[in-house]
Amino acid sequence: MRNPLLAPDLREFVAERDEAGLRDFFSGHHPADSAELLDDLEAADVQFVLGLLAGRERAAVFDYLDKPLQEQVAERMDDHDLAALITYMSHDERADLMSRLTVERTDHIFQLLAKAEREDIRRLQSYPEGSTGAVMTSDYAIVPADETAAAAIERLRHVAPDRETIYYCYVVDEDRHLKGFVSLKNLIIAPAHRRVADIMQRDCVYAKVNDDREATAEKLAEYDLLALPVVDEQHRLVGIVTHDDVIDVIVDEATEDVHRMGGVGPLEHTYLESSFRQLWLNRALWLSILFVAGFLTTWALAEFEDDFNKMPALVFFIPLIISAGGNCGSQSATLIMRALALGELTPKDWFRVFSRETLMGLSLGFGLGAVGFLRALITPTENIPEGMLIKLALTIGLAVSAVVLAGNLVGALMPLLLKRLGFDPALMSNPFVASLVDVTGIIVYFAIAQAILL
Amino acid sequence: MRNPLLAPDLREFVAERDEAGLRDFFSGHHPADSAELLDDLEAADVQFVLGLLAGRERAAVFDYLDKPLQEQVAERMDDHDLAALITYMSHDERADLMSRLTVERTDHIFQLLAKAEREDIRRLQSYPEGSTGAVMTSDYAIVPADETAAAAIERLRHVAPDRETIYYCYVVDEDRHLKGFVSLKNLIIAPAHRRVADIMQRDCVYAKVNDDREATAEKLAEYDLLALPVVDEQHRLVGIVTHDDVIDVIVDEATEDVHRMGGVGPLEHTYLESSFRQLWLNRALWLSILFVAGFLTTWALAEFEDDFNKMPALVFFIPLIISAGGNCGSQSATLIMRALALGELTPKDWFRVFSRETLMGLSLGFGLGAVGFLRALITPTENIPEGMLIKLALTIGLAVSAVVLAGNLVGALMPLLLKRLGFDPALMSNPFVASLVDVTGIIVYFAIAQAILL
Repeated sequence: MRNPLLAPDLREFVAERDEAGLRDFFSGHHPADSAELLDDLEAADVQFVLGLLAGRERAAVFDYLDKPLQEQVAERMDDHDLAALITYMSHDERADLMSRLTVERTDHIFQLLAKAEREDIRRLQSYPEGSTGAVMTSDYAIVPADETAAAAIERLRHVAPDRETIYYCYVVDEDRHLKGFVSLKNLIIAPAHRRVADIMQRDCVYAKVNDDREATAEKLAEYDLLALPVVDEQHRLVGIVTHDDVIDVIVDEATEDVHRMGGVGPLEHTYLESSFRQLWLNRALWLSILFVAGFLTTWALAEFEDDFNKMPALVFFIPLIISAGGNCGSQSATLIMRALALGELTPKDWFRVFSRETLMGLSLGFGLGAVGFLRALITPTENIPEGMLIKLALTIGLAVSAVVLAGNLVGALMPLLLKRLGFDPALMSNPFVASLVDVTGIIVYFAIAQAILL
Repeated sequence: MRNPLLAPDLREFVAERDEAGLRDFFSGHHPADSAELLDDLEAADVQFVLGLLAGRERAAVFDYLDKPLQEQVAERMDDHDLAALITYMSHDERADLMSRLTVERTDHIFQLLAKAEREDIRRLQSYPEGSTGAVMTSDYAIVPADETAAAAIERLRHVAPDRETIYYCYVVDEDRHLKGFVSLKNLIIAPAHRRVADIMQRDCVYAKVNDDREATAEKLAEYDLLALPVVDEQHRLVGIVTHDDVIDVIVDEATEDVHRMGGVGPLEHTYLESSFRQLWLNRALWLSILFVAGFLTTWALAEFEDDFNKMPALVFFIPLIISAGGNCGSQSATLIMRALALGELTPKDWFRVFSRETLMGLSLGFGLGAVGFLRALITPTENIPEGMLIKLALTIGLAVSAVVLAGNLVGALMPLLLKRLGFDPALMSNPFVASLVDVTGIIVYFAIAQAILL
């Protein structure tokens, strides 16, 4: 919203049902701004305001409304109004909206739409979540290969209002096989009489409808494109993915990775839009797995009970040592997972990662170990037998070093292993690394203690 | 790279210095593809291949090369060749390249460039890292307000090869103040004789040169724009930020957030491109802070030494309890930080978060507490006094519940507090949450143990 001061005015206009004032108010606003202003109103008021706008503008504003509000407004509209709205909406947005209506309502609306629109919506709805088909839109521009540049521009002029973009257009044969791509820039630069076939790029970058949406997003980003054509198994053009949808995909995928790293499974909605039950189930699953895995630490410590009964000061350092290893592991896991997600690393680089992170673990471990050694030297000594303090400090220093090294390697190598085995490396969440390192850390610590102290 | 099989061919062509073969090979490739093929070659070979391409094409391919390779090739080129290359490069890329050359080299190159180019590069270099100015480019298209749509299109046709985009163009007054914006689509739709002033959008969305680049990226994404004009303090147009740069900003910012969450400070380069020393310093800082904070756990456990000497089985559960709290805290911190980063939440929502996460912490804590209670019931009993087992189990169950609740609230509220105080909420990394919860967890655990068991 560019001017938050406008909002109170809007409420007044709406309260007074001031149609002239409202029309005036919304004229000249970017649809995203209008939608943001409307997002704060009740569904009934939003419906009223939308009713004042012309068909295409109404659909443009509706496209930008929050999804829950879209649903509420759609529920309030009668079938004819909703069908009219849907005709003007962008093709990907309307397919998405229709998926969120009740089956009964969808049937009613479908009866009011032209056959071509119906089929278009059904086709866009048919692609699985996460696929390129599910984020593409079918309102792309097509130009015939044998048309001149001037005629193609004239054609684009006419279809422009109904196309997601006219800056990129595509050339297909009679069976809709993708034959080439031409940008409006190249149409404009070309001599007016030149044929599209002579300007178009034949070997153009494309995505397949079943490609993972993340791979398609990366492809568009790699080539700095505005849109990417999407083809089916028979190489027929079925849609395009545009730069703005790609930004949404990139943000969504980053959110998924961040959530996984924090030990939260992927959410379908935002934090506030997710139901308590969804969030609970999502979190409880991982927490329970980690908790049961944590039983190993209980078992390990029970094994070492005699040791810490002899030297209770060993207990003081348990959390310090295992969390140093866990923290170092979280760091390396984070670095490696992100590098894998960005395609900077592949599992083939494992040896390079292994040697680098061994050196890193040794040097970080040595540094922290030295600090740990000094810290242990000033442990309250009343319960520690004469002459044992230096040995205790040595134990702590060595244990910190060893556990940090182990944690660092677990964190660095596990994501590579997961990726190699075909799993999502982001499953190696920070809490999961910490859990793995906890039990290793306890065993390493007490093994060192037994060797030096006991 | 669309066809990896091409690579061996390329090496042959290069080894044999087959100029005709190479020219043929690179013609018709997207510059991003050509660059990806070249990224695997030695700098000398890349320089040779680039020398075969025409000026504009050479610059387009060079723009896409990996940064370290760009520098190596630039170092090998003589001043005249490099100056010629720079003339054709996109304005943001060349300013970036010049910043990475030695001061001496920069001086030599500057002497060979036209005054306007020199000033353009110096200006783009002058904006601080992370600002909108540092990601914008100055090769945007301008059209005069009093020109007709047809004349404006004709003008765009001529400047197209040297502009980052001609799909959006801007209208400025004689002092370069931003007066409006018109898309090529609207120029094409408009009647040929219509004046730009009557088509252009006067109230257009823009960014300021000192705005945070992340905010600018979000603005472009929010309005689904191809580019955003950037103005200085006097509202003079100084550049544009394009959709492809915005994608880079979004990916970079996500990487920064992911790294922070894993307890790694922001890196300037990728994992593989960062030097060992950089990574070490970056990681050692956070690890040391967390390690020293961890001394609190040592101190706390020393305080409770008498308690676990009386009942050593209490020690078995220390890692289990504190890591349950840490894991739950990592989850809530992750959810809240991501929601803050995406603008879905603000610190004003604290009460909503507090009440929701209290309920969440209670229900997750109760679930895990019940499991912990059962687990403690089957603790190896030899060292536990008769009749104490049930009390121990009750202690564990209650402690797990309380620590999970505490961890959940720490994780949820600390990012809101940090944001409120003006810090980056992503500083609340998973390891940091875990450390905070470790010491709280130990104190809560032993307080409950003292009340029930001892």
